[in-house]
Amino acid sequence: MADTTTDIDRKWMSHALDLAEQGAGYVSPNPMVGCVIISTEGQKIGQGFHERHGEAHAEKKALDDIADKSSLEGATVYVTLEPCAHHGNTPPCCELLAEQPIDRVVVAMEDPTPKVAGKGITHLRDHDITVDVGLMQEEAEDLNEFFLYHQSLNRPFITLKIAQTLDGYTAAPDGSSEWISGPQSRALVHRWRSQYDAVMVGRNTARLDNPRLTVRHVEGRQPRRIVIDGPLELSEDLNLFSDQYEEKTIVLTHNRQKYENEADPMLDMLQSDYFHGETLLVDEKDGHTDLRQAFRQLGQLPLTSVLVEAGQQLSSALLHEQLVDKVECFIAPKMLGGGTKSIINLDINRMSEIMEFHDLEWKQVGNDLLFRGYL
Amino acid sequence: MADTTTDIDRKWMSHALDLAEQGAGYVSPNPMVGCVIISTEGQKIGQGFHERHGEAHAEKKALDDIADKSSLEGATVYVTLEPCAHHGNTPPCCELLAEQPIDRVVVAMEDPTPKVAGKGITHLRDHDITVDVGLMQEEAEDLNEFFLYHQSLNRPFITLKIAQTLDGYTAAPDGSSEWISGPQSRALVHRWRSQYDAVMVGRNTARLDNPRLTVRHVEGRQPRRIVIDGPLELSEDLNLFSDQYEEKTIVLTHNRQKYENEADPMLDMLQSDYFHGETLLVDEKDGHTDLRQAFRQLGQLPLTSVLVEAGQQLSSALLHEQLVDKVECFIAPKMLGGGTKSIINLDINRMSEIMEFHDLEWKQVGNDLLFRGYL
Ligand SMILES: NC(=O)c1ccc[n+]([C@@H]2O[C@H](COP(=O)([O-])OP(=O)(O)OC[C@H]3O[C@@H](n4cnc5c(N)ncnc54)[C@H](OP(=O)(O)O)[C@@H]3O)[C@@H](O)[C@H]2O)c1
Ligand SMILES: NC(=O)c1ccc[n+]([C@@H]2O[C@H](COP(=O)([O-])OP(=O)(O)OC[C@H]3O[C@@H](n4cnc5c(N)ncnc54)[C@H](OP(=O)(O)O)[C@@H]3O)[C@@H](O)[C@H]2O)c1
Repeated sequence: MADTTTDIDRKWMSHALDLAEQGAGYVSPNPMVGCVIISTEGQKIGQGFHERHGEAHAEKKALDDIADKSSLEGATVYVTLEPCAHHGNTPPCCELLAEQPIDRVVVAMEDPTPKVAGKGITHLRDHDITVDVGLMQEEAEDLNEFFLYHQSLNRPFITLKIAQTLDGYTAAPDGSSEWISGPQSRALVHRWRSQYDAVMVGRNTARLDNPRLTVRHVEGRQPRRIVIDGPLELSEDLNLFSDQYEEKTIVLTHNRQKYENEADPMLDMLQSDYFHGETLLVDEKDGHTDLRQAFRQLGQLPLTSVLVEAGQQLSSALLHEQLVDKVECFIAPKMLGGGTKSIINLDINRMSEIMEFHDLEWKQVGNDLLFRGYL
Repeated sequence: MADTTTDIDRKWMSHALDLAEQGAGYVSPNPMVGCVIISTEGQKIGQGFHERHGEAHAEKKALDDIADKSSLEGATVYVTLEPCAHHGNTPPCCELLAEQPIDRVVVAMEDPTPKVAGKGITHLRDHDITVDVGLMQEEAEDLNEFFLYHQSLNRPFITLKIAQTLDGYTAAPDGSSEWISGPQSRALVHRWRSQYDAVMVGRNTARLDNPRLTVRHVEGRQPRRIVIDGPLELSEDLNLFSDQYEEKTIVLTHNRQKYENEADPMLDMLQSDYFHGETLLVDEKDGHTDLRQAFRQLGQLPLTSVLVEAGQQLSSALLHEQLVDKVECFIAPKMLGGGTKSIINLDINRMSEIMEFHDLEWKQVGNDLLFRGYL
């Protein structure tokens, strides 16, 4: 970070980050971006954020927000991501800014997208605008972790959600699991659903719980709903295939060449006009859907983030395949002493092989504890 | 609580509670008590706490602390527990206080001991001293929870310590468990050891880990060490039977009448002059030591508190027998996905039968999370 930045710069960048966050869930696969414009007198004269995919960028919004364009003379622009340099749905923001009588642009982080990658900053500097890059870069990267992971890994950012007892069980011996975690924890999960591009469950969870995977208890955007069903044995009566969000459903099933001469009414249904969702064909691996390939396909849709709300089998398989980026684990102040263990089969034999998390956060949510960690 | 108490009263009672706590580990089976004496000018003129079992009580200490006895005229005495009314190692504190020219005594809580139970307060009032009872009673009760539980249950207060991974395992499949929790967590356990009357392990832990159960990493008093060994199969070479704290060791073993005609070299050793610890004979129940009876005997020694640092078997058995008052569970930010589960066999089948904790506390200790809850 250039050391020409000050506490005032931090204040406005922090404000721009808060603005950016309001786009959470709506701008994907784009990053969230916020922008604040400050006059030479230190007054905020314009602000904006990228509100919805396909709509105006933050810089354009902030410029449009200014009634008296003369106040732009010598102004400073704070923007959470490098202004874009490519013609998309909107003209390049770096050109738009370069046309203004502004003095300085403060950028939290470069845009890693190959089409931008420093070109926006160079364009501004070529037009004699001072550009400071890197102020609150960590915060900006955290805000756009989905976008950044997707850019670099070519698959969505994957979060595994677990809700378990203190002793690590997710269901009682009779199979019941409602409700291990408390109402505040469950509301938080609904908030997350509205921020992730998609929510994922496996075949058993779909069959046994018939979940809706909708956003309730909070306001927010309905995510895509992914269900893995390798052998395609789920019933079309399930909520995922029949409720009002049916077109949001994505089914991942085995590549069926080998069955091509057999009748497969469920696949026929999924590929017919009756089903308005999407069906992805994925190779089989060890008798189950190849998870790595599945997420590569999901990344191409493109989905930048998936929240997995699965049972023991899928959760453990994802951890085993090193396909989990973040774990959000609710721990309820309760014990079962039996039933379904949250995680099994990681092929760890010795303490030296233990799976460790970093960038930890422990937070109380109602009576529960929320653990957050990265892998 | 009498509403004649003020913020200034709280300040001094809080000070007295802090003093009292300095006796932790040293005064058992007595309660911890602290005392502060304030002159009519609002100056602290004396303070004291019960430092060691058999030594002077807090009130005596605080009075002895005053050089100029004339400053006692009209003074207020803050004491965390009702002054005693019985002749023990020391004369009754209520009589000692009643002889002073003080105006008022503020007492956090009554002493439930049958020999006191209000008599100390009555004695003071009979001598025209104003007595306010109940200020910071909850804090005072928390401070002396070991003493209070022991008084009412006729057994020690029992805390179960667990150190597990996020997914609820206490050892890897190969049996290794060093170290799941981090150094700060382990140091905290040593602090607790110095505050409990005794630390307990079972036969398997004693045999496999050969623990010393000593206070290391922190300064503090060495507790008694209890090992359950029903069939008496442990080797006398273990640290618990042979190190410098040997006389602190208590062995709980089955009542051996039925073996009375058989040679039993280990029992002979434990009951001989070679062993300086204690041996308690307890009935058998379902093939193991009867835990309820064991704790009743430990309460009579008297022990007011036991910290259980056991493995899965003993920990689960204690929870199942409803013999756990408090759980202190360290959760490390790690996963094993296999190995030894922390808790099993609670005979819980449905969610409605789940074991719930109250008075919860979640606290970060280093990278670990410490859960504390009461049953
Ligand atoms: N407490 C909670 O938070 C919570 C949340 C969700 C569910 N649950 C409970 O969990 C239970 C269902 O869990 P579950 O674990 O049986 O089912 P699941 O989560 O539905 O997992 C099975 C799915 O995992 C896929 N998978 C991919 N790779 C795998 C591998 N290597 N091994 C195994 N599966 C693999 C399977 O794919 P294929 O289809 O290709 O075989 C299948 O679709 C239900 O009782 C539900 O109530 C609890
Ligand atoms: N991660 C940790 O925090 C931690 C702490 C301690 C130990 N450990 C590990 O735990 C392992 C040993 O654990 P463990 O559970 O096998 O042994 P344990 O804790 O030694 O438990 C066995 C003891 O429990 C007694 N007990 C009483 N009632 C019982 C009942 N109903 N069922 C079963 N036992 C009953 C047994 O009494 P009788 O003698 O009368 O049969 C025996 O003395 C070791 O590998 C050790 O390393 C881990």
